[in-house]
Amino acid sequence: MTVEVVKASGEVEPYRRDKAVASLVRCGVPRGEASALVAEVERELPQRVTTHEIHRRLESLLRERHPAHALRYALRRAIMRLGPEGYPFEKYFAKVLSKLGYHTWTNVALEGRCADHEVDIVAERGGRRYMIECKYHNAPGTRTDLKVALYVYARFLDLRDYFDEAWIVTNTKLTLEAIKYVECVGMQAVAWRYPEGRGLEALIEETRLYPITVLSSLGDDARRRLLASGYVTLEDLWRMSVEEIASIAGVGEEEAEEILEEARLLKP
Amino acid sequence: MTVEVVKASGEVEPYRRDKAVASLVRCGVPRGEASALVAEVERELPQRVTTHEIHRRLESLLRERHPAHALRYALRRAIMRLGPEGYPFEKYFAKVLSKLGYHTWTNVALEGRCADHEVDIVAERGGRRYMIECKYHNAPGTRTDLKVALYVYARFLDLRDYFDEAWIVTNTKLTLEAIKYVECVGMQAVAWRYPEGRGLEALIEETRLYPITVLSSLGDDARRRLLASGYVTLEDLWRMSVEEIASIAGVGEEEAEEILEEARLLKP
Repeated sequence: MTVEVVKASGEVEPYRRDKAVASLVRCGVPRGEASALVAEVERELPQRVTTHEIHRRLESLLRERHPAHALRYALRRAIMRLGPEGYPFEKYFAKVLSKLGYHTWTNVALEGRCADHEVDIVAERGGRRYMIECKYHNAPGTRTDLKVALYVYARFLDLRDYFDEAWIVTNTKLTLEAIKYVECVGMQAVAWRYPEGRGLEALIEETRLYPITVLSSLGDDARRRLLASGYVTLEDLWRMSVEEIASIAGVGEEEAEEILEEARLLKP
Repeated sequence: MTVEVVKASGEVEPYRRDKAVASLVRCGVPRGEASALVAEVERELPQRVTTHEIHRRLESLLRERHPAHALRYALRRAIMRLGPEGYPFEKYFAKVLSKLGYHTWTNVALEGRCADHEVDIVAERGGRRYMIECKYHNAPGTRTDLKVALYVYARFLDLRDYFDEAWIVTNTKLTLEAIKYVECVGMQAVAWRYPEGRGLEALIEETRLYPITVLSSLGDDARRRLLASGYVTLEDLWRMSVEEIASIAGVGEEEAEEILEEARLLKP
């Protein structure tokens, strides 16, 4: 019996074990263990299932057996939960860049040759200056497309006097057309798993700036309160006491303790 | 008592008689008569009224007294009724261009330096070739903005080997930022009443390619049937017999007669 998988984009494709295993291996689960977990989930799959449902089942097994890996597995959807009412993606990504040694400024108004622009992030490192446009989507399956790449490039040309390079940063994937164009005109793109090994997920791993939205112990209300007060990453929580978390998140001390414990699972 | 006018964009401004008069004069109503009609409508205006409502009342007075001018007055909203299910705006505008002496092709796939593109209209006249991007909005108050102008320009740069100039054509207005940018980079724009005297409405007047959607005698169903069969402009109707109109629009001969009579009001 073949299982059909419905992707977030609506496309349907046959289920592939190797993809499920690879998704676990990427989060640090040893390959043998990853295969065993996938086999366990496979036994109960219906004939037609969404990608989301497979992830949910694997994530819940992971939470029991390898809680730290489960947090990393939850990263992609955690990023989606940063917005739209939560903490803006561009501020979050500016933090990632700072950790990587860039100086950053967000929402910078600049006068171009032919128009005025607001640039999401201006970043500077080693004497080079970058114009960074963030595209945040909170619907899975959305892709950043050629039109976006085109207008970002035109904006860069108009602001050419200020910048050495333009980047597009997105929490989703880019279309193939957009990637081809970006590479051809000499822009950089950071997207989900693009470029290979230097995608958004890789930069987050490298800087360990996991957003607090990876935590399964964090309720909606507590999440919103923490984000609104500027506590965005697990690193922010590591520095806090149980009492502080309880008071800012508006939860009891027992719940705050649980949140802090889960957050510490990813502490190096 | 001051009347407040709510514009399609949601902005509110005080009612101005001169604007209402000017809108009639632009459709060919003599100024004295225009003032009289406006005064008549003013007597019954509520304290807060939408632009749309003022237009509706003026249009209905015009239909009684100056039916041919009423058709021209209805033009802007008639263009909105060309889509989205109706006849595509880019095909309609290509007809306007043909009448102005351009050779045109619609929906042309072209390989650029860095990406593949589909160009809405390719037009050629006097040895110059134009890349034309159409932006059709069917909600009044929408404006074509800087982002659109930026991506059209980047597309033009990528297709620079094929074209001498890029145009943006829209049935709505452009934002001031978009106009400033378009002029500065050397693109052309055709929008509602832009540029002064050569806007979309002026080109339609010049070519007399009034869309059939200006006709008040044309019901929704008949309109859809005619558009679907490729009968788009009053000129198309002028060439038809009452019997043909009745059969294609799916109406009785009496109704077809009425439609044809109204259409002929704008025949030169």
